[in-house]
Amino acid sequence: MPGYRVPLDDIRFVLDDVLDIQTHYSRFEAGSAADSDTVAAILEEGAKFVERELVPINQTGDAEGCEWRQGGEVITPAGFKEAYTQYVESGWPSLSHPEEWGGQGLPSSLGMTLSEMSGTANWAWSMYPGLSHGATHTIETHGSDEQKTTYLNKLVSGEWTGTMCLTEPHCGTDLGLLRTRAEPAEDGSYTLTGNKIFISAGEHDMAENIVHIVLARLPDAPEGVKGISLFIVPKFMPDANGGVGERNGVTCGSIEHKMGIHGNATAALNFDGAVGYLIGPANEGLKCMFTFMNFARIGTALQGVAHAEWAFQNALEYARERLQMRSLTGTKAPDKAADPIIVHPDVRRMLLTQKAIAEGGRAFIYFLAIQADLVEHATDEAVREEADQVLGFLTPIAKAFLTEAGFEAANHGVQVFGGHGYVREWGMEQNVRDARIAMLYEGTTGIQALDLLGRKILLDKGVSFKAFRKTVAAFCREHRGVKAAAPFLRTLRWMMLEWAYLTFRVGLSARKNKDAVGAASVEYLMYSGYLTLAFFWAQSAVAAARKLEAGEGDADFLNAKLDTAAFYFDRVLPRTRGLKAAVLNGPDTLMAMTADHFGR
Amino acid sequence: MPGYRVPLDDIRFVLDDVLDIQTHYSRFEAGSAADSDTVAAILEEGAKFVERELVPINQTGDAEGCEWRQGGEVITPAGFKEAYTQYVESGWPSLSHPEEWGGQGLPSSLGMTLSEMSGTANWAWSMYPGLSHGATHTIETHGSDEQKTTYLNKLVSGEWTGTMCLTEPHCGTDLGLLRTRAEPAEDGSYTLTGNKIFISAGEHDMAENIVHIVLARLPDAPEGVKGISLFIVPKFMPDANGGVGERNGVTCGSIEHKMGIHGNATAALNFDGAVGYLIGPANEGLKCMFTFMNFARIGTALQGVAHAEWAFQNALEYARERLQMRSLTGTKAPDKAADPIIVHPDVRRMLLTQKAIAEGGRAFIYFLAIQADLVEHATDEAVREEADQVLGFLTPIAKAFLTEAGFEAANHGVQVFGGHGYVREWGMEQNVRDARIAMLYEGTTGIQALDLLGRKILLDKGVSFKAFRKTVAAFCREHRGVKAAAPFLRTLRWMMLEWAYLTFRVGLSARKNKDAVGAASVEYLMYSGYLTLAFFWAQSAVAAARKLEAGEGDADFLNAKLDTAAFYFDRVLPRTRGLKAAVLNGPDTLMAMTADHFGR
Repeated sequence: MPGYRVPLDDIRFVLDDVLDIQTHYSRFEAGSAADSDTVAAILEEGAKFVERELVPINQTGDAEGCEWRQGGEVITPAGFKEAYTQYVESGWPSLSHPEEWGGQGLPSSLGMTLSEMSGTANWAWSMYPGLSHGATHTIETHGSDEQKTTYLNKLVSGEWTGTMCLTEPHCGTDLGLLRTRAEPAEDGSYTLTGNKIFISAGEHDMAENIVHIVLARLPDAPEGVKGISLFIVPKFMPDANGGVGERNGVTCGSIEHKMGIHGNATAALNFDGAVGYLIGPANEGLKCMFTFMNFARIGTALQGVAHAEWAFQNALEYARERLQMRSLTGTKAPDKAADPIIVHPDVRRMLLTQKAIAEGGRAFIYFLAIQADLVEHATDEAVREEADQVLGFLTPIAKAFLTEAGFEAANHGVQVFGGHGYVREWGMEQNVRDARIAMLYEGTTGIQALDLLGRKILLDKGVSFKAFRKTVAAFCREHRGVKAAAPFLRTLRWMMLEWAYLTFRVGLSARKNKDAVGAASVEYLMYSGYLTLAFFWAQSAVAAARKLEAGEGDADFLNAKLDTAAFYFDRVLPRTRGLKAAVLNGPDTLMAMTADHFGR
Repeated sequence: MPGYRVPLDDIRFVLDDVLDIQTHYSRFEAGSAADSDTVAAILEEGAKFVERELVPINQTGDAEGCEWRQGGEVITPAGFKEAYTQYVESGWPSLSHPEEWGGQGLPSSLGMTLSEMSGTANWAWSMYPGLSHGATHTIETHGSDEQKTTYLNKLVSGEWTGTMCLTEPHCGTDLGLLRTRAEPAEDGSYTLTGNKIFISAGEHDMAENIVHIVLARLPDAPEGVKGISLFIVPKFMPDANGGVGERNGVTCGSIEHKMGIHGNATAALNFDGAVGYLIGPANEGLKCMFTFMNFARIGTALQGVAHAEWAFQNALEYARERLQMRSLTGTKAPDKAADPIIVHPDVRRMLLTQKAIAEGGRAFIYFLAIQADLVEHATDEAVREEADQVLGFLTPIAKAFLTEAGFEAANHGVQVFGGHGYVREWGMEQNVRDARIAMLYEGTTGIQALDLLGRKILLDKGVSFKAFRKTVAAFCREHRGVKAAAPFLRTLRWMMLEWAYLTFRVGLSARKNKDAVGAASVEYLMYSGYLTLAFFWAQSAVAAARKLEAGEGDADFLNAKLDTAAFYFDRVLPRTRGLKAAVLNGPDTLMAMTADHFGR
């Protein structure tokens, strides 16, 4: 049976040594509550919770899946509800929400460590609380006082969960096409009619109420994306005492049968005259949504790290135990019938690739979470704006690149297990199936790539891009004396120039042909991703080297960091050579064929 | 619901225009039966059969899977048995087997087109007849006259099916570790005891008998791979009249629950004193197996093409119909709510990548099948040997590269469908799950890579490699006048030099460190694969250009070939830049970390 132990050592290394989180926390009020002891306690208790409660129901949850019952009830897999009850009783949902609504007021970045643990232990389960975050943030940011009073305590405590209802059968990416209608009622509420699909955690038996945030059109709304408004549609109408009253007119018509994340109910919801409440200004729903889109996308980027970590831990254990063939450089385990497969170079290549993605990705995600803290809490407007810029620039890279890389790592997990990887029992194939969704939802890889290159770089005239390059340059300058990291910094420096050159070339080409952006976008994003991950590996290497120089910490752990960084720069980063060449070759051969000729 | 239409136009183009199959068939006796009319009739009838009988049970077969029943019976999904009965009644199994045993005596390469069609229509189903080929070839090649008389008619007619029983719980790649024992009995037969796992088509209800070819050890056998012998172990003992008699002591203990190919029973077989018959010389079982290993591996390489074609056809249809967003270069479908997604450059990139893999892969596979014909039938020993050399050299490339590329193409299929691709209904996620096995069985990608670089290149001192380079060089020379293909030939020529240089560098590095081979192997193989596929795209481009020059054929079809070739050289082949860089960076960073430090 597959397993997962929370890599507390690495989480601590990233938080403390790479990102100096205590200095960060000392700079804003919510942070000051997250002192070193609090962080340690949360990490340890969180690890206990996910290892005991969530790991054991990951594989069974996949095998059982969710069950839809006539009338629209959804039954989650055995143990899901019980684990959720424990999660709520232990106060985990409220960790990083404001004290005003019953939260613990700790920074979001600390919540991210918990999301990582629970997501790695059981992604399908962790999507239920995950989706609540989105709904909660929406109401925190855009809700009226009454709406806050009615919903936030329940959402923050986890007694109620939330969803985001965007997609309809004919529109996913292109929300401008959406048709769900909201007619004003006499009491100031709205009556919603329409069909939503692909609603994660859209119906379940884990909480007493579900608060849907729904995108819909008012009768007089302009066409397209400028005519979309946001509505709160509770499954049960809240009563005056903070409990639940009558059932609202939103029902689950079916749940999808999917490749993976079987434990999470992906619901088709029918709104048949459901009562809804406008949240935020009319016709500005999409804009309101985007205020926390970055945060939601980091949450999905995290999925890449989660599946990479799961794949790595299990593949590593298997590679140490499975005996098969002898090392080509001579027998390594003479007392055994064959050598453990970890002696074989290609098995090591797969394991190191997984390790590089999981650990480098972790640093990347936590760094973004720190920026999100600053956007939320920084009192200095310049600091806040800079963090917002960095976050906006790096989020599409993180979301697309880390989910693609996480899928690769999950596939290496299967490959290390050989034929056994293809069999359900070992859990490696589930990990691949679960990982596959991450490149699709919250904006596909293609959409992230357009967001990066089209909006965040070209439309922005390179301002954020330049700021990020400055950050990297400053880092390289600051640590140029760290000998063990010098080759990494050197590569990083020249590749930052190459990245700028590549961007310049695409921008030039886009002036003549707008399709040049789309044609370059995914390979450009992947190039950016490999390079950004290299930046985080350089940071990890510097942190490890400095500790080794100072004679601090676990030397084996720190040397493994340097070795993994070296592997990454040597054997993974060169993939940028192919990506660069493809980008520079431009859009012509992509656009030449007429649509009719594809099938010829 | 997903669908599949046999791409007869492309199959004909590859056979007739790229590979000039009729000239090939005119050169040996079995070939002479495959005249143009026969080929046409078989392709058309084959297409009808797979489209009518196999396509409709592909998705239902996945949903139902196989059922194991107490006592060891296995029930295949609804319709599988009926389709098999029709297949047998139509005489398809006997197509390329010798007339002596009731076969039609047609060339194996023609059988490969049928395998492609049935495999694309329904890979899980097509594995049942597919496995029979292996067993049949073994008995044809190594069986005694009595064994041939007893088994071949039944196998060739398809009344009985066959399996290959290699893997055991503790050994897959490393067959030297196998433990199944064969004790001689007084009547000249053997008594087999042991457990085999992962036996594809190992038990089912589709045929009256199953003939297992089993790898086992004689009591006095030397240790390791030199002590393995081959045995025929029938499920039911054949009786004197060519029917089936008593049940033999081989039973199916369970079937695996797998990621995909649910319609194919992957059996755990228990041999409890089963009666077996030695086939081929004692202790030379592995050598005997390898005589048709190339053929089996081409059959798996084909799986990459199958899943790429399936993904391409369905994604293309979806991309033409799904409306989402407007083209960045201006509205393309003003009468519709949005443009069909095929206007978006990144969707085109995915579709063209699929097309390049499916069609280029088809040419690659058929070329190998032609070499296999020559190995089987050529009367000129020099011709036979050359074909054997080419086949041996290219097979690991085809097996590993095409299955990896096919998996990528299958994943693009999901991606083009967006969230809908993740839902079972559309069939795209099944295609990914089914495709995933191909990189594992018949030797993993890593094993193929070692076979290519270690055995087929370095041990062979580059003889086959050089011969293949000469073939490519001769092709480039012969067609240097074809203007439309000139840029492809130019790229091909210099990359063949680069490939030789890369090989030289790895060879040099391997002299100092044997791990250099394993460390370079997979990236080296993928480099070789991209380049070999480029060779087949160059051939297709030349064939298309020549027909266009001559004013023959369907100009749209031929121009689409040239456009796809251009896309492949421009946007896919550059991936070799990254692979080259990784290979040249050598094994050091891969081997530096001690096994203990991986988990630190």
